[in-house]
Amino acid sequence: MLAAACHPSTTENPPMLIDELRRKLDPTAVITDPHRLAPYMQERRGLYPGKGQVVVRPANVRDITQAIEICHRHGASIVPQAGNTGTVGGGSPRSATEVVLSVERLEAIREIDPDDGTITVESGCTLASIQRAAYSAGRLFPLSLPSQEQCRVGGNLATNAGGLNVLRYGTTRELTLGIEVVLADGRIWSNLTGLRKDNSAYDLKDLFIGSEGTLGVITAAKLRLFPLPRCRRVTLLSLPSVDAALPLLRQLQAESGDAVVAAELISSTAMAMGQLLEGTPANPLAEADWYLLLELASPDPRADLDTCLSSILEPAMNDGSVSDAAISSSESSAERLWLLRTAIPDGQKHAGASIKHDISVRPGELSKFLPKALAAITEYDKDIRPCVFGHVGDGNLHFNLTQPAQGSADDFLARRAEINRIVHDIVAKHHGSIAAEHGVGQLRLSELSRCADPLSLELMGRIKDALDPNGIFNRGKKIPWTRFAQ
Amino acid sequence: MLAAACHPSTTENPPMLIDELRRKLDPTAVITDPHRLAPYMQERRGLYPGKGQVVVRPANVRDITQAIEICHRHGASIVPQAGNTGTVGGGSPRSATEVVLSVERLEAIREIDPDDGTITVESGCTLASIQRAAYSAGRLFPLSLPSQEQCRVGGNLATNAGGLNVLRYGTTRELTLGIEVVLADGRIWSNLTGLRKDNSAYDLKDLFIGSEGTLGVITAAKLRLFPLPRCRRVTLLSLPSVDAALPLLRQLQAESGDAVVAAELISSTAMAMGQLLEGTPANPLAEADWYLLLELASPDPRADLDTCLSSILEPAMNDGSVSDAAISSSESSAERLWLLRTAIPDGQKHAGASIKHDISVRPGELSKFLPKALAAITEYDKDIRPCVFGHVGDGNLHFNLTQPAQGSADDFLARRAEINRIVHDIVAKHHGSIAAEHGVGQLRLSELSRCADPLSLELMGRIKDALDPNGIFNRGKKIPWTRFAQ
Repeated sequence: MLAAACHPSTTENPPMLIDELRRKLDPTAVITDPHRLAPYMQERRGLYPGKGQVVVRPANVRDITQAIEICHRHGASIVPQAGNTGTVGGGSPRSATEVVLSVERLEAIREIDPDDGTITVESGCTLASIQRAAYSAGRLFPLSLPSQEQCRVGGNLATNAGGLNVLRYGTTRELTLGIEVVLADGRIWSNLTGLRKDNSAYDLKDLFIGSEGTLGVITAAKLRLFPLPRCRRVTLLSLPSVDAALPLLRQLQAESGDAVVAAELISSTAMAMGQLLEGTPANPLAEADWYLLLELASPDPRADLDTCLSSILEPAMNDGSVSDAAISSSESSAERLWLLRTAIPDGQKHAGASIKHDISVRPGELSKFLPKALAAITEYDKDIRPCVFGHVGDGNLHFNLTQPAQGSADDFLARRAEINRIVHDIVAKHHGSIAAEHGVGQLRLSELSRCADPLSLELMGRIKDALDPNGIFNRGKKIPWTRFAQ
Repeated sequence: MLAAACHPSTTENPPMLIDELRRKLDPTAVITDPHRLAPYMQERRGLYPGKGQVVVRPANVRDITQAIEICHRHGASIVPQAGNTGTVGGGSPRSATEVVLSVERLEAIREIDPDDGTITVESGCTLASIQRAAYSAGRLFPLSLPSQEQCRVGGNLATNAGGLNVLRYGTTRELTLGIEVVLADGRIWSNLTGLRKDNSAYDLKDLFIGSEGTLGVITAAKLRLFPLPRCRRVTLLSLPSVDAALPLLRQLQAESGDAVVAAELISSTAMAMGQLLEGTPANPLAEADWYLLLELASPDPRADLDTCLSSILEPAMNDGSVSDAAISSSESSAERLWLLRTAIPDGQKHAGASIKHDISVRPGELSKFLPKALAAITEYDKDIRPCVFGHVGDGNLHFNLTQPAQGSADDFLARRAEINRIVHDIVAKHHGSIAAEHGVGQLRLSELSRCADPLSLELMGRIKDALDPNGIFNRGKKIPWTRFAQ
């Protein structure tokens, strides 16, 4: 293991590094022009503008290995980047000396095998392009995110992206059979064999997935495909109480033979904020404190989703655990119901600045966590507007707090640390996660240092040292790892 | 990191170590009497009789941490053991200086939450006791192995056990939400929170699962439960060719809404060897080269498995891709069909000695791999009887070779290395695994050194060093790791 002193951080990239990158890679691979750098330096929420002065975008995996080997030799640290749609500042360079390594040119779909139910993709493929390739082959790739036209699968893998269909199909990790990854010294480790069972090694794949580019650069993956659903129903329900959501979901999962693919909880404020976005359909139901949006889908041509839904919903409406319901009667009505949910994040922007929390607790704890967290915020500042929505079956909520209607955005955002602390302390009391599906990046790092089990952080540090001993990958992200802090 | 020299291996356990273990733990926790040691030293296939002279069986997790801390301080290496039913010598001590650490007294079911679909168990629970506890709470724990009454879940976790229902429910890894593990220095790392989504850390859990006791001692786990099936059908099919198996399975999976929970391929020789075991029912079908045993099950009360089966099997029998079929009409007829498969491993013993291979390839590769591997064995020795069966949907076959009917068992077994090499070379050509579900232990270690990607082995070694720097856990198992080779 080399000592830190071997690889000092300098204040700018030495021209030698850039020259060598230009010489060894193709001419379009190295960007230093400020205008062309800009899109790589933008950060989605504007919290962490990138400070890098060079972007390398190799054309293929061999060139990725070369670029990493060159940076490694020059002691330059690397910020891996895919679609740059992350929300926690994980892809933004923190200093002028960091080289952004973009995988965006690795856009090949290397192989698709519908019978085997696999697709092998390079990490620069957009999520939507993978969904479309699967669909063309008569298969479903179920990972589904609002940013799917822009985000690239390398980023989905690096952050173990979740999204709307985790309930039925799992997170990116569970959808991934194998990966190809370039290590800190430029060597390629690969397990793209597509084996369903292999106990010959430690589970290295899952160490890289979700490590947010701190252990290696994922260049390709073999992903799982599923039979296409042949029927689906979307239903929106008004609930008198949030406690009703989970029992109803569990009953539907059991009665439908696990056909529930999504279950989104929406608070009345979140529903109202979705309505602020132009083009959002009107809420078809009577006002309620909570709504539950469910999608059922099945590849079984004999599945009778309507009978299943009515067998659960009729008694639920009779006993008052559901107060109103709308069920899709066509693909377009299903899409309209979904818009009520997907409009929320953008609609929320029209209501002012927000401080967002990406938290999870055990699903059964949600009905205890929510009233406590909401009460704590009201006590702190009764004018803050909680815009709560998310994946109730996974126990994962976007506990977003919108500024008071009267007041300045800047004043509100200046209270971020204090508000984070209130929410995350309650999450910790319920043994939850403060980085459920978006990752840690820079945004959650200080709170993670405060909330996380110190032994977990120590073990992560030991693994970081074992796999990236010179600390060239994504410093100051994901782990409070001080050996090479800049 | 301490140097190896700090912890020299001695030729026997110093009395001081045993004294301290006796003093700090309860009186029944330390066994040195040879008669009482015997069951812990037996190895299921008789290939790796244990050489240990002391077994420690702490009564609780606190005592496990004490035992490990004491061994660590005395420089004694530890062989973790659960049910001692493994088939690769992973739980057998290789020398008199190794301390067997049994988790068998950790038998508590700490919590069961049927609504949340989780059960929290200690690692000494037998698999069958967990299945029964889940069933009593109206839930299914789907891991299913022939040894389930004896094996303990600590071993299932350490080896990432597979078994009969992986196709529908996944391996032990996929059934595990979190674990509690005692590290090499005696500290406890735990993530038993039951979160469905948590991207706040590296995936440490999956590093311990499947590491065969080389990175830590798993003391508890939170496992996933599923709705109980309300209907099931078992069918046995005669196939004119092995090529027919996978397309048929894929079609049934799609048409049934993923209701196929098991798909076992059985060669004619394997079927005949099952018949050698007393109590095996007669094969109800006409003789064929290959058989396929399928189980369909669904929690959906409206699922119509009979219609689904006939919609696939009738055309298949008409076009000749299935030549004969039997479908269960009751629970007892379902069980009788299963006995034809489960009798094989014991039946095989009546035919003489066997050399076994636990291999996997991509499922779609099976029909290419099988003829090549069978031809290679025939060419090597046409009198060897291949008894091939296994989990066709996972691409995982038990490619077992029974000795020639005429000839000595010892002569045959003496050819193990040479026969392993023939089979594993073909597996390697098809990018398969030579340790698909039973683990590496001692049995596959030399072949793994020969077949595995050297970079994988290097990364495993670095992780081993990071998490068990003094190499106290399960030396000479799982990884060809030479820094502390005895």
